[in-house]
Amino acid sequence: MEIKKLLEEKSKKAWEIYIPGLSIDCAVFGFQDGALKVLLLKVKGQDLWGLPGGYIKKEEALKEAASRILKDRTGANDIYLQQFRVFGELNRSEGFFTEYEDTLWHKQRFISVGFYALVDYSKVQLKIDDLSNACEWVSIDALPAFMMDHRIIFDRALLTLRKQLNYKPIGYNLLPEVFTMPELQRLYEIILGKKLNRGNFYRKMTGYAILDKLDESRKGGAHKSPNLYRFNLEKYNLALKNGLKEGW
Amino acid sequence: MEIKKLLEEKSKKAWEIYIPGLSIDCAVFGFQDGALKVLLLKVKGQDLWGLPGGYIKKEEALKEAASRILKDRTGANDIYLQQFRVFGELNRSEGFFTEYEDTLWHKQRFISVGFYALVDYSKVQLKIDDLSNACEWVSIDALPAFMMDHRIIFDRALLTLRKQLNYKPIGYNLLPEVFTMPELQRLYEIILGKKLNRGNFYRKMTGYAILDKLDESRKGGAHKSPNLYRFNLEKYNLALKNGLKEGW
Repeated sequence: MEIKKLLEEKSKKAWEIYIPGLSIDCAVFGFQDGALKVLLLKVKGQDLWGLPGGYIKKEEALKEAASRILKDRTGANDIYLQQFRVFGELNRSEGFFTEYEDTLWHKQRFISVGFYALVDYSKVQLKIDDLSNACEWVSIDALPAFMMDHRIIFDRALLTLRKQLNYKPIGYNLLPEVFTMPELQRLYEIILGKKLNRGNFYRKMTGYAILDKLDESRKGGAHKSPNLYRFNLEKYNLALKNGLKEGW
Repeated sequence: MEIKKLLEEKSKKAWEIYIPGLSIDCAVFGFQDGALKVLLLKVKGQDLWGLPGGYIKKEEALKEAASRILKDRTGANDIYLQQFRVFGELNRSEGFFTEYEDTLWHKQRFISVGFYALVDYSKVQLKIDDLSNACEWVSIDALPAFMMDHRIIFDRALLTLRKQLNYKPIGYNLLPEVFTMPELQRLYEIILGKKLNRGNFYRKMTGYAILDKLDESRKGGAHKSPNLYRFNLEKYNLALKNGLKEGW
């Protein structure tokens, strides 16, 4: 079906099913081969990319809606998902469907709730829908042009992630179950966009007391075999809830 | 006018002016006589108290709406105002106006954006409106029963404030221009709900480098006159933007 007809049909259904005027946009992060990636969609008939998103059903809690939207897109249930900001500027979503009737759902003013998600890359099965012709992981170092204000939403999500490194643990949903300290440090460096001192990182991270050191170390390689760690989930989740023990 | 008629009249106007389904609730904090206080309203015909709130005009940005709502209530322009969370559960606002027609604006499902505000107590002139019969500063140690989910919103606002002590400066909008270190410590203790060690507080706070020490000290009293400080606004605002310099 051509995109115009498809949109008009979707519009009719949307007015029935969803709360008008309110949308959800998701910045979904995954970590692969030492690179932080974000999940992007390409909308049919456009050269721009966008964050996956959707709407809230009339009888659905906000958080349920975000989970449903991400499950439809990634097949994954066990996603770390947090709202981080509402985007409520004028003209953030208006003026993009000028060739359509004014009653088109997608042409209305939307205030959007931004969620960010951290997912285990290996557990995700990306799905395109009938409005998009691509759904891909894109490295945050090589972002394409975004539609609407999605670049602003993405930037804010990354900034949130960056700030939260100072008071929340991170990594459980991004790294494999077992990892080395340099691998964990690499994740922090990628999010922060800067190199960290190895000794300081080690001291600070062990000070948080959220890691269990394994008895075995990784074999192979010319150098000393590096120690292996895993997150202590109980302590990790406590720190997620109460903050890392650096506070007042 | 009786409250029922008033509500029905307000409802009619609201459908014309505002975005349906979306509201704003504000936790407004002020600091007076060593106590942290929050601004509460008492709705006519109810024994419960609520946070001041309102709606977003169809042609108004979200943040503008929050500023307008607070200005109407406090007369203050220069308010530190931050959105902190969206409250989107089912039945958070429904089921409260059962004796009214289903078309009543106030009876609809609302998803609410929570803002918290820090205001200079001395610059505020509280105003009640025609739907409320009281508007007061209430100490957070002596909170009354709240309407709807407003206690949840308040608790979350306080938790946000508490967590932000670890990475954002606080006090400029709450303390007088010039203050002593014990006065600043008292503000932190009140927000955290616990005593802090005086020496540690001093070291940590001076380490942030956001204070200017004045040449004079406070005169009077039996003990050594305490040193006076003021915030260095340039450094303070930089720390608000980038976080206190404790991070990675």
